[in-house]
Amino acid sequence: MVPKQMTAVAKTKSAPGGELITVDVPHIKPHEVLVKVHATAICGTDAHIYKWNPWAQKRIRTIPQIMGHELAGEVVEIGRAVATVNIGDYVSAETHIPCGKCKQCLTDQQHICANLEILGVDRDGCFAEYIAVPEKVIWKNNPSLPLDVAAAQEPLGNSIYCTLVEPVTGKSVVIFGDGPTGLLSVGVAKTSGAAQVILVGLDNFLMNIGKKMGADHVLHGHNDNIQQKVLDFTGGYGADVVLEMAGTKETITLGLQVVRKGGRFCAFGLPPSSVSVDFSNDIIFKGLTLYGINGRLMFDTWFKAKDLLQSGRLNIKPVITHHFPLTDFEKAFSLMLAQPRASGKIVLYPDPSKMPKS
Amino acid sequence: MVPKQMTAVAKTKSAPGGELITVDVPHIKPHEVLVKVHATAICGTDAHIYKWNPWAQKRIRTIPQIMGHELAGEVVEIGRAVATVNIGDYVSAETHIPCGKCKQCLTDQQHICANLEILGVDRDGCFAEYIAVPEKVIWKNNPSLPLDVAAAQEPLGNSIYCTLVEPVTGKSVVIFGDGPTGLLSVGVAKTSGAAQVILVGLDNFLMNIGKKMGADHVLHGHNDNIQQKVLDFTGGYGADVVLEMAGTKETITLGLQVVRKGGRFCAFGLPPSSVSVDFSNDIIFKGLTLYGINGRLMFDTWFKAKDLLQSGRLNIKPVITHHFPLTDFEKAFSLMLAQPRASGKIVLYPDPSKMPKS
Amino acid sequence: MVPKQMTAVAKTKSAPGGELITVDVPHIKPHEVLVKVHATAICGTDAHIYKWNPWAQKRIRTIPQIMGHELAGEVVEIGRAVATVNIGDYVSAETHIPCGKCKQCLTDQQHICANLEILGVDRDGCFAEYIAVPEKVIWKNNPSLPLDVAAAQEPLGNSIYCTLVEPVTGKSVVIFGDGPTGLLSVGVAKTSGAAQVILVGLDNFLMNIGKKMGADHVLHGHNDNIQQKVLDFTGGYGADVVLEMAGTKETITLGLQVVRKGGRFCAFGLPPSSVSVDFSNDIIFKGLTLYGINGRLMFDTWFKAKDLLQSGRLNIKPVITHHFPLTDFEKAFSLMLAQPRASGKIVLYPDPSKMPKS
Amino acid sequence: MVPKQMTAVAKTKSAPGGELITVDVPHIKPHEVLVKVHATAICGTDAHIYKWNPWAQKRIRTIPQIMGHELAGEVVEIGRAVATVNIGDYVSAETHIPCGKCKQCLTDQQHICANLEILGVDRDGCFAEYIAVPEKVIWKNNPSLPLDVAAAQEPLGNSIYCTLVEPVTGKSVVIFGDGPTGLLSVGVAKTSGAAQVILVGLDNFLMNIGKKMGADHVLHGHNDNIQQKVLDFTGGYGADVVLEMAGTKETITLGLQVVRKGGRFCAFGLPPSSVSVDFSNDIIFKGLTLYGINGRLMFDTWFKAKDLLQSGRLNIKPVITHHFPLTDFEKAFSLMLAQPRASGKIVLYPDPSKMPKS
Repeated sequence: MVPKQMTAVAKTKSAPGGELITVDVPHIKPHEVLVKVHATAICGTDAHIYKWNPWAQKRIRTIPQIMGHELAGEVVEIGRAVATVNIGDYVSAETHIPCGKCKQCLTDQQHICANLEILGVDRDGCFAEYIAVPEKVIWKNNPSLPLDVAAAQEPLGNSIYCTLVEPVTGKSVVIFGDGPTGLLSVGVAKTSGAAQVILVGLDNFLMNIGKKMGADHVLHGHNDNIQQKVLDFTGGYGADVVLEMAGTKETITLGLQVVRKGGRFCAFGLPPSSVSVDFSNDIIFKGLTLYGINGRLMFDTWFKAKDLLQSGRLNIKPVITHHFPLTDFEKAFSLMLAQPRASGKIVLYPDPSKMPKS
Repeated sequence: MVPKQMTAVAKTKSAPGGELITVDVPHIKPHEVLVKVHATAICGTDAHIYKWNPWAQKRIRTIPQIMGHELAGEVVEIGRAVATVNIGDYVSAETHIPCGKCKQCLTDQQHICANLEILGVDRDGCFAEYIAVPEKVIWKNNPSLPLDVAAAQEPLGNSIYCTLVEPVTGKSVVIFGDGPTGLLSVGVAKTSGAAQVILVGLDNFLMNIGKKMGADHVLHGHNDNIQQKVLDFTGGYGADVVLEMAGTKETITLGLQVVRKGGRFCAFGLPPSSVSVDFSNDIIFKGLTLYGINGRLMFDTWFKAKDLLQSGRLNIKPVITHHFPLTDFEKAFSLMLAQPRASGKIVLYPDPSKMPKS
Repeated sequence: MVPKQMTAVAKTKSAPGGELITVDVPHIKPHEVLVKVHATAICGTDAHIYKWNPWAQKRIRTIPQIMGHELAGEVVEIGRAVATVNIGDYVSAETHIPCGKCKQCLTDQQHICANLEILGVDRDGCFAEYIAVPEKVIWKNNPSLPLDVAAAQEPLGNSIYCTLVEPVTGKSVVIFGDGPTGLLSVGVAKTSGAAQVILVGLDNFLMNIGKKMGADHVLHGHNDNIQQKVLDFTGGYGADVVLEMAGTKETITLGLQVVRKGGRFCAFGLPPSSVSVDFSNDIIFKGLTLYGINGRLMFDTWFKAKDLLQSGRLNIKPVITHHFPLTDFEKAFSLMLAQPRASGKIVLYPDPSKMPKS
Repeated sequence: MVPKQMTAVAKTKSAPGGELITVDVPHIKPHEVLVKVHATAICGTDAHIYKWNPWAQKRIRTIPQIMGHELAGEVVEIGRAVATVNIGDYVSAETHIPCGKCKQCLTDQQHICANLEILGVDRDGCFAEYIAVPEKVIWKNNPSLPLDVAAAQEPLGNSIYCTLVEPVTGKSVVIFGDGPTGLLSVGVAKTSGAAQVILVGLDNFLMNIGKKMGADHVLHGHNDNIQQKVLDFTGGYGADVVLEMAGTKETITLGLQVVRKGGRFCAFGLPPSSVSVDFSNDIIFKGLTLYGINGRLMFDTWFKAKDLLQSGRLNIKPVITHHFPLTDFEKAFSLMLAQPRASGKIVLYPDPSKMPKS
């Protein structure tokens, strides 16, 4: 029985923070399904919205709006035009809702649709007991997948897309950024046969998780001479692949320097402002290939996530460090924003009985 | 009979200009061949060295050194270790001399060899009656290929590599820069089935050549609202492909703005200093693929050049606008550096009897 | 005003031929639209069904069923779940209706969906005044596109996909089969910069169209020594690319022989039975890449078709040789099946007033 | 000190078997180096030549000729035109000697050169104390690489090229053939993140090695219902990737049946005669991509081999099962040809003191 009302964590005013509110359970449209949220993970984007940083102030157009977009739950209602999803399905959701009409949508680039709508950013999200989700972004999970892992598939998908946009087997891979996406990328690169994975981080807590995920070398962004070390590890050539997941000017600049001639650079982390680039030396003479990575391939990335997790090839549990009831969201955000960082991926549970027994 | 001495145009001092000198004909090493130069074209790089701009001051390490690297001629002598080239062969040459030992050389990226040596930059060039060229960069021409076209294959190769690093058939292509490489790219894109080719230039003389090469739209970089026009021409999406061949901050910035989500941006023109880039909006959210393009694929690009020219699919004659005896090099450089520009590709002839009859 | 009943050409019994029948105008489902057919072209598949060959006897499961799948028309009604198509839209349709749920559908391979349903094969087709078409396969045409060209976009799409599955610029391309798909491929290959296009056909009428479409060489499958000529035309290497569109054992065998080491072979024509292949010499030692080509990329191919036609880069009119009222379908099929062949693509018009004025 | 004469195993007459002979140590040409062979592994090709099967009778043009092509050793002499190899280098060699002049050689396809010469097939091989090897196919080993592993890099390269011609991360891979190349491919696929690897073999001894190499499922080619099992393991779709390394009609036919729509089939094993292929159902309707795989990419594959071995990501020791002095070659071939098979890769040592201590 779906109740009339539900508890949710929403942005209720143009200021830092969030609020626990009681609102009507969403009414679904013909192409939507209603999902009872069992687990929802916090993303860096949620933290931006929570802190109400300049990007969030500019980007968020509706208040109040429920936050959150990484989820796992159960379908409890389906719209009358829905054809491929059933009540009772155990699901997660792609966060990027494509329009289905534009050139990108019609040529296998739905993830960068011209009219993209994003859960928890452009419409109500999943820090709530229920969420309305368009059928076309529903992803069905294997029943055996743990809730927290299922909710973390969305950021894992970022890592899979970014890491594997070209093959990494036998390559040297440098990952800048020890946040959850960087840590997950360590696992993806190792699972995919990267010859060596070098993680550049700033926080001991996270760098240790990087080691658990299989990084061959973990360097400290401030204390190590990154450029020299990467040259040493790669026979003087530089890295075959650089994944920039820290989103700072410094790491973008450094990343462009440590990638080898003919190498690949993936820009994933969003820097807060423009970055000065030496096109001649760092891009052109290098014969560099640079990819801007946004979202996940729909649904090629999801299949890879599913198959790697299900086969046991990839274990992402070390990255998921904390579990809270949804009502403890403030505690969760505090932990997430603490410096030095002492958390990886944090998962919230609208129904605390769904939390893993420790 | 190869003479003892020859005439050449060399950089003889650390100052603007060049000098006509008499020097010994080069002695070839075991892996080299001696080419009698019949035609040699002037490149922008030669102009940089001639003007002695900051790049040249820093890059040129030997003086005196003979300038020039685009050539067509005849093999008149071969070293004792040479196995694949014969005396009498009608040849041109790849300008990038790879070491053959480094990782790039051994994995199909010779053009960005770790130890690249460049004709006319790192060793004596072809503004001379004779030049010594390593066997491994010799390219054999079809006897029917005119000398000027043969000498222009090297820059044509830049355009082929840059334009075709991904397919363009059915795509909209915006080319920034109306220098010879931009103009040749217009022809390459049209020949390869681009649905529309938009050239952005600054000089009427060159923009008119762009039309002859098949550009569907020729825009003026200062007088036209480039961003709006590109949106208009592309149904509001932006261009599928941008080739940046002007090498200025403004065109790089503009190019990154007019390429569509999921599009391709090729950086070829070398900007004199760093460029500020909005990674978040122009690269990451766009899901852009950006290639740094340097040189030509060895020798895939050369085969394409040969086959397109020989089959008559591509006519590059409109881009070759002037012919001078080598001894008139000062006149040629004056013309090349004049503003507004009134020349395309200029070809020099050590033996004036080889000049085309007009 | 949509009438209750309509005229259509259907397979009404398990025997050769077709029949003009009067049936109810289709009722559309929520995700479907009703298209008033203005032009419909005959495909080889329709001829198989008309002749009732072994494939058709096995494949066609419903009788009576309306034939035909290549169309252009106007949307006159839309289902209640339809979101992206409007009444009055000038449309064609992708023939392959994907399920939207299977692994292929979810990973950019809808055209080879695990549960494919094909217009005119698995459900009623478009040799009729009206046809019900699922929204997801509707393609919107530019109003200026002639009806016959619009109806021929579907087979043109086969040619585009087959020809351009890898780039052809600067390549030698041999096309086996002078039916409409082969002839359209000649045009696509030339437009895309193939250095030479060699068409192998059997019928003078069609081979002449091949010349009009731009073939550099037109060879007769029985009278010419194909293998020797291809070697002659390609400097002794063999063809870079072979497109097999004749669908016979002989042409497949010959095609595998004339493709060069490291070349590409596209299998498109459906041979009636198994073909004996020398894997060691024709595939493995050759380092061949062989693609099975079925349908069109959805909708990348359609965009290419649209942009090449609209820009005037590709003219397919020479391939469209005949126009008949739909009621003259028997005359049309007779002409199509005549030997030697004296027709290219034949277009039928349910409303004869829509026929082009000659 | 290089002696005048040496011991070698050669084909000395047109009949089964081989003979231990004493011959002059080879004189090297200017572009060649002389390698003192420390370890040499037996390949299936050597077995064909030893057995003198129809292929060998037709292919081997010189008798006597020294057999063998998989090697590890030390450079003891270099030709006067050699520039990149030094005396004392610890090396292996690419077996395919490209001409360096043909279209394939000049466009990154040296491994399928038009004029390929193969060690131990077209010229004297390495079942000897010394071998002359052209500089251009020399590969330098890391000093820490064990001799047997170094000698097995060549067949490992086959497996790497075949397995990774397209990425396998997250894919289901079926490998037909439990010979060394199949077994090595199991390891390569697992190391590269294949979600599941299914090995189809015939011999218990080898199938057990397949398990050690990481196969998720090992099926018996005769006793298991391969088609049904593959469907069961892959959710009814069929395999994403099939590597055919058995080289029989039955496995090629079966392989084409078990690969999924849109999947990839790599033909590596050489069937003794032609194979009947259902092009319509197994290739075209499937939208299959089929690669003929011959040799190794030069030298991309060698870098991958080196980096995977050196980093410890890949352990190929389980595949190397036996070690013999070169003089025991008859014992080695007997073991290799025994049925049921009870050996993996067998390594021979011209100098028995180089054999690993057990």
